Amino acid sequence: MASITASYPWTTAPLIVGAPMRLISGPSLAYEISAAGGIGFLAAGTDVSTLSESLSTFKSLLYTSPIGGTSSDVLPVGVGFILWGADLDLATKALSELLEPPAAVWLFAPSSSEELGSWANGIRSATNNKTKIWVQVSCVADAIDAIKVAEPDVFVIQGADAGGHGRYASAGLISLVPELIDTVREYYGNLKEGDTSSLPPKFIAAGGIADERGVNAVLALGADGAALGTRFLAAEEAVIRKGYQDAVLKAADGGNSTVRTDVYDKLRGTIGWPEGYGGRGVINLSYRDAVKGLAFEENEKLYKVAEGAGDKGWEEGNARMTTYAGTAVGLVKKVAKAGDIVKELRGEAAVQRI
Amino acid sequence: MASITASYPWTTAPLIVGAPMRLISGPSLAYEISAAGGIGFLAAGTDVSTLSESLSTFKSLLYTSPIGGTSSDVLPVGVGFILWGADLDLATKALSELLEPPAAVWLFAPSSSEELGSWANGIRSATNNKTKIWVQVSCVADAIDAIKVAEPDVFVIQGADAGGHGRYASAGLISLVPELIDTVREYYGNLKEGDTSSLPPKFIAAGGIADERGVNAVLALGADGAALGTRFLAAEEAVIRKGYQDAVLKAADGGNSTVRTDVYDKLRGTIGWPEGYGGRGVINLSYRDAVKGLAFEENEKLYKVAEGAGDKGWEEGNARMTTYAGTAVGLVKKVAKAGDIVKELRGEAAVQRI
Repeated sequence: MASITASYPWTTAPLIVGAPMRLISGPSLAYEISAAGGIGFLAAGTDVSTLSESLSTFKSLLYTSPIGGTSSDVLPVGVGFILWGADLDLATKALSELLEPPAAVWLFAPSSSEELGSWANGIRSATNNKTKIWVQVSCVADAIDAIKVAEPDVFVIQGADAGGHGRYASAGLISLVPELIDTVREYYGNLKEGDTSSLPPKFIAAGGIADERGVNAVLALGADGAALGTRFLAAEEAVIRKGYQDAVLKAADGGNSTVRTDVYDKLRGTIGWPEGYGGRGVINLSYRDAVKGLAFEENEKLYKVAEGAGDKGWEEGNARMTTYAGTAVGLVKKVAKAGDIVKELRGEAAVQRI
Repeated sequence: MASITASYPWTTAPLIVGAPMRLISGPSLAYEISAAGGIGFLAAGTDVSTLSESLSTFKSLLYTSPIGGTSSDVLPVGVGFILWGADLDLATKALSELLEPPAAVWLFAPSSSEELGSWANGIRSATNNKTKIWVQVSCVADAIDAIKVAEPDVFVIQGADAGGHGRYASAGLISLVPELIDTVREYYGNLKEGDTSSLPPKFIAAGGIADERGVNAVLALGADGAALGTRFLAAEEAVIRKGYQDAVLKAADGGNSTVRTDVYDKLRGTIGWPEGYGGRGVINLSYRDAVKGLAFEENEKLYKVAEGAGDKGWEEGNARMTTYAGTAVGLVKKVAKAGDIVKELRGEAAVQRI
């Protein structure tokens, strides 16, 4: 079975992936991750209107400093879509206009299996099958459903420790990765020969990984590579407020200091996540007040004041702003160039550990 | 720094530990795990009255079939105590009567730091420091507290995926193990020389591990060994109802099919767990009815009927009985001898994978 890096010829093993964090993962971050031999993902998220511009910026970075090993078929980058909120027609239009489409799309949070199928088919057709279909799942049942409608090329296995949105009902990577891989392989093994239109997919683990130890752990569990979000919040190239980034550097004891909740969705007015999803973020005054029973309108008023205060909205004593991060937040202690982070994750540089 | 197996000379690396599951981990299970080169733990749990008898039974097994590499100082076995419910005086009395005390005690769920300190001191004194003090923690803050009052020889790092009781606020092993180890090592490094009365402790990871892949993953994360509960529910030597064991073999997709809750504590009348603890078990009718809002008294009545039905109380359509298990339950597919399970976990035997 070919290694996953063979499908993305500019990459180096072990494969490191930069997750498409909505509003945060822009062209510079994605470019630097890919240039270091990983795969950077642009976050289209729920708003596809800026996708063409993001891809243009990525291309101009690429033409200025080419990445070795790339083919002329695809751009060495991926795009992440949050399916319940993104417009499939706009997305396929943006992708079909490109001579070189992105190497991969990362599909997350469909409102139904049918929607996932439409996206997979729509993108394969718009890109002449050049773009690989990655599907993020957080349980075994979703993975089997996804095979039926989308035949993913890659599963992103999202563990309960992941920052930002994910399912409440979920397991950590330690048990989820081996069980999901075994079950998917068994499923493919049981298909009658005529039905095996594609090879069994590859598996990227995400959620709770922040350093080389986490990467080596998921490889031991059977994954083909690791995707990281929280670690790249502290990349120089992340599109992130300094207050947010500082709060990430400061947070420790991630199981105690973060929580998966819908409090921040409500305070920000983000409506539409399918049932069963919440966002994991650093616990701050907004969450504590909600738990204490502060009336929503009052909490929302305080949130808007914090929003108007800029970086101070994350400062101690005043911290109310959404600070999505995973339980690995306590392992993130310094800002670094994304390319250096990728190399450290692969164990290529001396990693500073306390 | 000496390897952990040096302190338990009958053991083989990587160190495999059988967790002290209340009512389930008896002398036969503990003996077979230790005889295979691991460390078996007897579950004294909250009831210390049967401890002397359990240790006697263990000794008779040992005299019948000695375990190579043991010293005459300690028995090649550990004992687990649930501190909020167990009687320290009875425990130290039982241990001080032994010429060879157990090699380790595993202390869990104190109602206060002071209580943890009393247990550590009481047991060290009762056994002339022969018995090593293992302390189970599920966050970084608890680990630092434990150093101050108990100076553990070994930390059992319990991740959120663990079955049975643990903290609701917790992280998976993927992020918890590296952050906790880094912080404890930093803490010891910062102590003034005169204060380092003991070497930095060792670390055993627990929660979500069910096969060789999980063991290798926690070693990659920096742990010195792995402790398992759920996998040993399907050991031939476990003291477990067939209905319970069958339910474990059947459960799949552990993040979806298990939940951490206090529903089962209430239904069984287990009162006294400190705030913040719940038990992870397989979701069944008792839990579903509680979520649906069925009156407690009604749910309790149905529970007692199921209890009276023996193994049928776990059968589909009627399943109401407590079925504590971790998210790795989906990886447990066959009953085996505990010794064979230990060897498989170390990668010594061909592991049957689908």
